[in-house]
Amino acid sequence: MAGSTYGKYFQITTWGESHGSGVGVVIDGCPAGLSLCEEEIQSFLDRRKPGQSKYTTSRQESDTVEILSGIFEGKTTGTPISLLVRNTDQRSGDYGDIAACYRPGHADYTYDQKYGFRDYRGGGRSSGRETIGRVAAGAVAAKILKRLNITLFGYVKSVGPVAIDMSRFDAEERDKNALYMPDCTAAKEAQAYLNDCIKNQNSSGSVIECIIDGVPAGIGDPVFDKLSANLARAVCSIGAVKGFEIGDGFGAAFATGKDNNDAFFINEDGRVQKKTNHSGGILGGISDGSPILLRAAVKPTPSIGAAQQTVNRLGEEAKISIRGRHDPIIAPRAVVVVESMAALTILDALLANMAARMDALEQFYLK
Amino acid sequence: MAGSTYGKYFQITTWGESHGSGVGVVIDGCPAGLSLCEEEIQSFLDRRKPGQSKYTTSRQESDTVEILSGIFEGKTTGTPISLLVRNTDQRSGDYGDIAACYRPGHADYTYDQKYGFRDYRGGGRSSGRETIGRVAAGAVAAKILKRLNITLFGYVKSVGPVAIDMSRFDAEERDKNALYMPDCTAAKEAQAYLNDCIKNQNSSGSVIECIIDGVPAGIGDPVFDKLSANLARAVCSIGAVKGFEIGDGFGAAFATGKDNNDAFFINEDGRVQKKTNHSGGILGGISDGSPILLRAAVKPTPSIGAAQQTVNRLGEEAKISIRGRHDPIIAPRAVVVVESMAALTILDALLANMAARMDALEQFYLK
Amino acid sequence: MAGSTYGKYFQITTWGESHGSGVGVVIDGCPAGLSLCEEEIQSFLDRRKPGQSKYTTSRQESDTVEILSGIFEGKTTGTPISLLVRNTDQRSGDYGDIAACYRPGHADYTYDQKYGFRDYRGGGRSSGRETIGRVAAGAVAAKILKRLNITLFGYVKSVGPVAIDMSRFDAEERDKNALYMPDCTAAKEAQAYLNDCIKNQNSSGSVIECIIDGVPAGIGDPVFDKLSANLARAVCSIGAVKGFEIGDGFGAAFATGKDNNDAFFINEDGRVQKKTNHSGGILGGISDGSPILLRAAVKPTPSIGAAQQTVNRLGEEAKISIRGRHDPIIAPRAVVVVESMAALTILDALLANMAARMDALEQFYLK
Amino acid sequence: MAGSTYGKYFQITTWGESHGSGVGVVIDGCPAGLSLCEEEIQSFLDRRKPGQSKYTTSRQESDTVEILSGIFEGKTTGTPISLLVRNTDQRSGDYGDIAACYRPGHADYTYDQKYGFRDYRGGGRSSGRETIGRVAAGAVAAKILKRLNITLFGYVKSVGPVAIDMSRFDAEERDKNALYMPDCTAAKEAQAYLNDCIKNQNSSGSVIECIIDGVPAGIGDPVFDKLSANLARAVCSIGAVKGFEIGDGFGAAFATGKDNNDAFFINEDGRVQKKTNHSGGILGGISDGSPILLRAAVKPTPSIGAAQQTVNRLGEEAKISIRGRHDPIIAPRAVVVVESMAALTILDALLANMAARMDALEQFYLK
Repeated sequence: MAGSTYGKYFQITTWGESHGSGVGVVIDGCPAGLSLCEEEIQSFLDRRKPGQSKYTTSRQESDTVEILSGIFEGKTTGTPISLLVRNTDQRSGDYGDIAACYRPGHADYTYDQKYGFRDYRGGGRSSGRETIGRVAAGAVAAKILKRLNITLFGYVKSVGPVAIDMSRFDAEERDKNALYMPDCTAAKEAQAYLNDCIKNQNSSGSVIECIIDGVPAGIGDPVFDKLSANLARAVCSIGAVKGFEIGDGFGAAFATGKDNNDAFFINEDGRVQKKTNHSGGILGGISDGSPILLRAAVKPTPSIGAAQQTVNRLGEEAKISIRGRHDPIIAPRAVVVVESMAALTILDALLANMAARMDALEQFYLK
Repeated sequence: MAGSTYGKYFQITTWGESHGSGVGVVIDGCPAGLSLCEEEIQSFLDRRKPGQSKYTTSRQESDTVEILSGIFEGKTTGTPISLLVRNTDQRSGDYGDIAACYRPGHADYTYDQKYGFRDYRGGGRSSGRETIGRVAAGAVAAKILKRLNITLFGYVKSVGPVAIDMSRFDAEERDKNALYMPDCTAAKEAQAYLNDCIKNQNSSGSVIECIIDGVPAGIGDPVFDKLSANLARAVCSIGAVKGFEIGDGFGAAFATGKDNNDAFFINEDGRVQKKTNHSGGILGGISDGSPILLRAAVKPTPSIGAAQQTVNRLGEEAKISIRGRHDPIIAPRAVVVVESMAALTILDALLANMAARMDALEQFYLK
Repeated sequence: MAGSTYGKYFQITTWGESHGSGVGVVIDGCPAGLSLCEEEIQSFLDRRKPGQSKYTTSRQESDTVEILSGIFEGKTTGTPISLLVRNTDQRSGDYGDIAACYRPGHADYTYDQKYGFRDYRGGGRSSGRETIGRVAAGAVAAKILKRLNITLFGYVKSVGPVAIDMSRFDAEERDKNALYMPDCTAAKEAQAYLNDCIKNQNSSGSVIECIIDGVPAGIGDPVFDKLSANLARAVCSIGAVKGFEIGDGFGAAFATGKDNNDAFFINEDGRVQKKTNHSGGILGGISDGSPILLRAAVKPTPSIGAAQQTVNRLGEEAKISIRGRHDPIIAPRAVVVVESMAALTILDALLANMAARMDALEQFYLK
Repeated sequence: MAGSTYGKYFQITTWGESHGSGVGVVIDGCPAGLSLCEEEIQSFLDRRKPGQSKYTTSRQESDTVEILSGIFEGKTTGTPISLLVRNTDQRSGDYGDIAACYRPGHADYTYDQKYGFRDYRGGGRSSGRETIGRVAAGAVAAKILKRLNITLFGYVKSVGPVAIDMSRFDAEERDKNALYMPDCTAAKEAQAYLNDCIKNQNSSGSVIECIIDGVPAGIGDPVFDKLSANLARAVCSIGAVKGFEIGDGFGAAFATGKDNNDAFFINEDGRVQKKTNHSGGILGGISDGSPILLRAAVKPTPSIGAAQQTVNRLGEEAKISIRGRHDPIIAPRAVVVVESMAALTILDALLANMAARMDALEQFYLK
């Protein structure tokens, strides 16, 4: 059934599979009057492009976006924005094996069980290429957020056992290393670890963290559209994500109330602030004005060169060694996907919130 | 904005606050012909009832459910099922303080920021009583699942630092101890830990785990309605939840592909099975036929007796000590809420899946 | 499947059937800070109450509404408003016949075909009592609209062949006659016509018209949520409605472009206005600032005393004479239902529209 | 806000405007395993193509559809089907005038009021080209319906004052004349009438009727998703539609219960049938097994050559004569749009209905 639409107000519908004609997204509900050009979207897309280092697949995909609708004289018109990225570098020969066999850790088996058959070329719809639509839409959402002084900053927090040290946190460092880690020491260690993985035809899990700054207090809707709940869904809808945390996350489960509660105080500007931010910027599902902090657990790339036991479509046991060109770690290219999904979710909640009070309605319509 | 509706097909809308006339839920989209009576719903509700041990609030709420519509001659008619639980034990005097002050860790401040004011009696809509509607609906969903041979089993996995030992796992033990832990040794240790918390006017975080057995392979809808994504939202929409995991969760982030991939094999019945279940029963957002395993990180009860620093509605700093009757730990009464949200999510995905294939359509309408 | 929820932003979910415990509605997404009491809702409900004249059923139902949630200190809190009306006057004996037979013109047969069985008491969910939830919610929507200077005025335009004469249109007359017609001469004629119908154990069709004044230009969302499209659904979702028109409606189908186009001009206040209003206040699905004018064709009450041929549940032919207490015409009590559905639709579109432009977003969040 | 998505289960999102890069649609929720190729979609699109007679615009648009995703080895995969039609014949020069002036009967003024500005080229999103996405999706829906033995047949019932005579109804004639009327005598008369309109720089309104055969009893969901209500929205969401009827429509408003009720009987096959079909195949919002009959009132083409009074963006009065290439009547090319919207609505209701009963669930999952 239909599951490719996300958002209630700023609503996106993604489409496309790895080896079809292309992938894309339709954005519906984008406010009118936003200046927007292809370059702005492209720069977001380039952050998830393959072929950027030896830790990402060597496939060469230019992933050039085309705006098909919704823009007039450089501005959004309020009507649907259709974005298209043609697929180009498709060596279908690479994928002959997986037509018959179910790759462990992949969605091959489950798609077959659901639909009766599947587009096995490059993972079809379950390919990482599906996220191109998300990121293209995320670029638009992020631009709107920036106009509202809301910024997102995602990064790789850990690669296998190697985590960044927050005392060495350096935002600018993030874009300088291949692993998108804001700590150059950790990045080097992580690269060594990944080199070992590659040597062993293995891959590594990772953690992505994202900080969202500037969200005003009061955003999010009780009870099922809690901002935390929608962020959880948004992030866990990304292919390889197996866990989600807001604020202290599982740390809170081991803490006491005295430790975990964030005391309120009046800051120098005379505003309410929290002394700590264990809540991760969300209380009762509504933003509390502190930075929103979330984390995603990303599983290791399931495509590994080492031989694995599996079964085929005929119900026979088989061995599979996945060749082709695969990232030994998912996180570096997925950071921008996490940012995108977070941007879409925050923006949607901001739009929803505009009609939360009678006085806002009256101000808008009785002016 | 509207955020109190959950589910696309089996759709529930909850309403009500702690100290209003009552709380309830409307279930829309329940298949016709299910035998259903109030006792079946009541038995689910009783699992979240307060006053069951010294680890739960001493408030006496009978929480008796009344079916207002949707049942005829003992069976669901396919039309909305409206369920009502009247509020009874409301000592409004207990809550005088919190009208003025923002309780740390609570939603008082954020509701005020969003709506301009709030129903401060007992937490209003952000009270744990809001989950009564979820559990009442969850009872119906769970009954339908059982008819399809799908069962849910939730329990408290850890209380602060005290975790159950899986080698001592005893399902029947769960209902025998006040903490809902399926390990009597851990339960005793946890009680000692909680006694200390109570003595110190403190509270404890916890982890809830839930196993869903019998879900056939093929359930869940790419890409935003992945079963894992919707479970994440469902679980994270419960008041105090700060983290979510499916399968190995954050463990997968520290693992390698070789360790994390689950090999397929053909079992004795000639069926495809996985040797391990790191995936937690979901691959690519679609169920893989293995048990679905999820975890929720629950923060410590924010209501603690110890004095805390805060601010009041006038923007002045203040001290608050929360009296009233509060659970020192949330998990024991929240287990059934997690089960309920999981049941609602799984059922919704099962209903959605019925129209996934042309052959199903033809079989249904051309018979 | 779930079909009892209406609206995206101001979202209502109705429940209940004729002879169950009660009927009601949950309103979710109502802006916070609206003063609201039961009397205001009651006065709307009283307009659809039976037993008001000999043209409405003699059933005595007090239809007293109870607010169960969502109001604190006399104001909406932004959380769901649950409204309950208990069923009282249920003479189940009256309906014995229809358990077995399918009443012509009723939904008995179709419910049985869909759900396998039905609540046959008083029409169950397909009873006119279902509209109580709509009207209770409509009262809230209409109150908000009034605060925004938007008013609705519905009335009976024709009863069988007897139509009001627009040259005699007298708004105040509407509430003075039993038929809700704003033309006392036509009302008298219509009563004579209805008396004949009653004598002949027959019933009459009718047309309801509704004028909505004060909707600003710019409301409604291309392309599927055109204001006209959503009004069409809203009105056609009322039990007996078989036709819908906006502006000239079917008249436009017989007109030419020269006649049907409304010329624009600048009025005395320097504002854009239309010389005529063939469009009925909506162009391209978006309000144009003129009054919105819609009409509903209401079929004759299907419950008639005369003997009719039908079949029973066993698949045998049968005769049925419907006794019980039935209105010989539906429109007088349905006017307030049409107003309610229109109010809900207009309000929903107004809320949606608040986020249509970037400058509105920036004004709201950067103030 | 987002309003370009239609359907809950078989969900379509259209995008694109008259003079952008193209128009298209994403279909999400299409059952897997349907054989589908571009030719099948093209043949539907060709029915709304301009340039087919002197009663349709002379613009030459090939409107060639490209399938971008969702098909593998000739079959739908269950994932989104993205369809693209590039815009080709865009003589932007033709439309210079309308940048400044508001065309009477068009959406120019209302778009400006809503969004602050508009894409004035060829009507932008409010252009008839927007329906290309609907028709492309409708082709897919209609193909699925045909597999379930459900057929749709739409035609022009009247052109201005000239209506077909049902006694001369000839289905095959429909495709033989330029006006899509199933009555060759009426078609000739109508052409004469239209020739007069053209001579006078005028245009004509029209009525479209559509018959849907083979829908089983039991389809449609009370109370807001009544099949009739959703068809009303579907049809009234088409640009120029100002009225909608199901069955006898407004005729029922002038009838009595005795005349309007359809008696049930047992037919030769031993099945329940109705003697008449005043209901138009829907009772209580649920299909009754008779053919579904609906009508749409289509206003005259607002673009007429004759001079009209209007105002411009600066708030000054102005005269406008619309040159360019415009159909003098909308209906002939809109018939396939009505069929498409009806097909989408019926299919959506059929998919929803599969999970209406417990026995269906059990049969599906316990087989």
